[in-house]
Amino acid sequence: MSLTLTPPETTGRDPVRIVVDWRPFMTDHTIMAADVSDGDIDLRWSDGRQTRFNPFFLRDNCPCTLCTLPLTREQVFEIVDAPADLSVQSVSISASAAPSAVSDTVDGPTLDVVWSDGHRSAYPAGWLRAHATDDVSRAERRAMAGQPFIWGAEHADGLQTFDHDAIMHDDAALRAWLAALRTSGLTLVSGVPTQPDSLLGPAHRISHIRETNFGRVFDVKSKPTPDSAAYTSVNLPPHTDLPTRELQPGFQFLHCLVNDATGGESIFVDGFAIAQALRHEHPEHFATLTQTRMTFWNRDAHTDYRWSAPPVALDAMGEVSEIRFANFLRGPIDAPTARMPAIYAALRQFQAMTREPRFRIERRLSPGDMWVFDNRRVMHARREFDPQSGPRHLQGVYVDRDEVNSKYRILSRQGA
Amino acid sequence: MSLTLTPPETTGRDPVRIVVDWRPFMTDHTIMAADVSDGDIDLRWSDGRQTRFNPFFLRDNCPCTLCTLPLTREQVFEIVDAPADLSVQSVSISASAAPSAVSDTVDGPTLDVVWSDGHRSAYPAGWLRAHATDDVSRAERRAMAGQPFIWGAEHADGLQTFDHDAIMHDDAALRAWLAALRTSGLTLVSGVPTQPDSLLGPAHRISHIRETNFGRVFDVKSKPTPDSAAYTSVNLPPHTDLPTRELQPGFQFLHCLVNDATGGESIFVDGFAIAQALRHEHPEHFATLTQTRMTFWNRDAHTDYRWSAPPVALDAMGEVSEIRFANFLRGPIDAPTARMPAIYAALRQFQAMTREPRFRIERRLSPGDMWVFDNRRVMHARREFDPQSGPRHLQGVYVDRDEVNSKYRILSRQGA
Repeated sequence: MSLTLTPPETTGRDPVRIVVDWRPFMTDHTIMAADVSDGDIDLRWSDGRQTRFNPFFLRDNCPCTLCTLPLTREQVFEIVDAPADLSVQSVSISASAAPSAVSDTVDGPTLDVVWSDGHRSAYPAGWLRAHATDDVSRAERRAMAGQPFIWGAEHADGLQTFDHDAIMHDDAALRAWLAALRTSGLTLVSGVPTQPDSLLGPAHRISHIRETNFGRVFDVKSKPTPDSAAYTSVNLPPHTDLPTRELQPGFQFLHCLVNDATGGESIFVDGFAIAQALRHEHPEHFATLTQTRMTFWNRDAHTDYRWSAPPVALDAMGEVSEIRFANFLRGPIDAPTARMPAIYAALRQFQAMTREPRFRIERRLSPGDMWVFDNRRVMHARREFDPQSGPRHLQGVYVDRDEVNSKYRILSRQGA
Repeated sequence: MSLTLTPPETTGRDPVRIVVDWRPFMTDHTIMAADVSDGDIDLRWSDGRQTRFNPFFLRDNCPCTLCTLPLTREQVFEIVDAPADLSVQSVSISASAAPSAVSDTVDGPTLDVVWSDGHRSAYPAGWLRAHATDDVSRAERRAMAGQPFIWGAEHADGLQTFDHDAIMHDDAALRAWLAALRTSGLTLVSGVPTQPDSLLGPAHRISHIRETNFGRVFDVKSKPTPDSAAYTSVNLPPHTDLPTRELQPGFQFLHCLVNDATGGESIFVDGFAIAQALRHEHPEHFATLTQTRMTFWNRDAHTDYRWSAPPVALDAMGEVSEIRFANFLRGPIDAPTARMPAIYAALRQFQAMTREPRFRIERRLSPGDMWVFDNRRVMHARREFDPQSGPRHLQGVYVDRDEVNSKYRILSRQGA
């Protein structure tokens, strides 16, 4: 279909029609005063906060129906099309903006701006408060971001367990499970049917799955011609899956259908706990592991995947954001010879810590149990098992962080 | 199956059985001398090069059948299990190593090492030369890495075109196509059948496809209730797809089945060319765009995807590695008010450059044509079209960089 954009308002008195965000932005605070100072817009709020806005920032985010496509709520205005000398002609506070055809009524007051080129914008107070770029508001938003729950062996009894039927049918249970995955990164789902592909039910409650060259659903059992150590019966030391890919799979589902073999217990370590301890106990090794790229590869006759990155990644704030490690997939380190003593000292310490009991939770999976864990944080290991002692069959899928976060935001938006 | 590891060699005289790499490491140079110096191993080669190896590095990469699982060629030895005071007991050069059951004969000489704990290793000369960690060898490897071919409007006539049937049936043609994708990032495939899903043929020649919430194969036509501006008929300014995901899809396939509508021409700009020009012509804006995280989002009633990253990403060497930009998916910038003038000056300059004719290649797709391009480098745009003037139907899929690189390595390994 063809979209006809609403023409600009032609009188100064009609309210600006705006497209509201998908999210509600509530605020208990009201704008007491709006002024222009040095070209910026200063707002004073009922709780005393002062928020200063750059004019290009506000013009860029104009929610009017000319600048924002009502059907998709996406921006069509490009800020390069604002005049280079853009300035504020006037600001005022209105009781309410007029809703556009696709938007709910905008509750509460708006800041109305008339720009030097005649364009008019209206910003809901809640949106302004939620996106203010003053230091206090930005620090407040950072403080509201969730912190990971770091765990170790002492938390083994408190392992978060969720019921399959609840997460399949109850949005609140689904949201609680996703919250646990985002916070602690390790959950057990019980009561999963033991028919093959049953793990797809909970996975599809989130979204589509992440396909890899090992398939959409991968079967973990010992194979006669394995293309990975995972498909043998040997001990697998603590690792993340597919560190060989630029983006390691976000969450791994590992569902037990049959487990009659001796051995094969699952072991989990919180990679963030190890990184935190390393940072505290051996800061020089921590620094080395955040700065040294290691190469990981998956190779067989048909594929040759490789990626190089530090085993411990930091985000823009210097916080640990990702663990990437699998000894059996690690390739030669490409670093100067003189750096090798420091690199190997750090690597050996890291490996030693993955073996320390204080970090380890060990469990034997029963049929119907399913581990779901953050593969970019939690390292998992498997004890050697005896394939002659009985059958063992697990199935796995991956779901990326993007999907878990999107679903969690939607459930939070709805207040499920 | 259960794997029985070969026991350690029991006599000093038997050659060490090793597992050779999937890749051949040829070298024209031979090891003239091997010595131990300050605990490191120094090799002198026939071309005069001196390569010094750290003992932990060599021990870590021992290819013997005890340290490397023959079936998967994956490492089972963990370097933390080497003694802290590991040292070299003796080094020597052998005519050849004995192959293991799964390996081809190791051609040429090996460096044999006896370690202080009695373990014995043998390293093929080609492997040592390819992984040497001296400054000259490392610089040589960096210099051999391919450089991108940066293009602009003047290269429109030289657009690399590949024949559908050739890439479907001829490995050499497939490899040439993948090489072009890796180097220039923009190719046209002609002669694709115009039945729906025909684009899966060439995609599956590489590997599996990258699924998103828009589906595995997405249909690009104007829709009555669009969940993205892409599914309307409006002008789409130059953008990468899904900057809203942590990992933007690597390569996009866009296949034309029907194109009878007026307008809708495809426009491509090389984001690396713009970044290069920006770095040269406006270094302060370039710096700002590599340091300022911008948020991109895809949102509708059922999904809420978001990711924040700089529009221009640099790799560890400071080279431009990725472009991430779609104005219609961009959210409010979260940066200090005082930084906004610099940020908006940079953003406006970047947007202005995407409109400059010197960077643009414009083409109208005919049925059977398929664009395949690097979505993390090449920005694509679409002119507005008139949906009343005739039908227009494109189909798209994504294939990630990991898959393209893996397939390219395999085809190169085979010498196709």
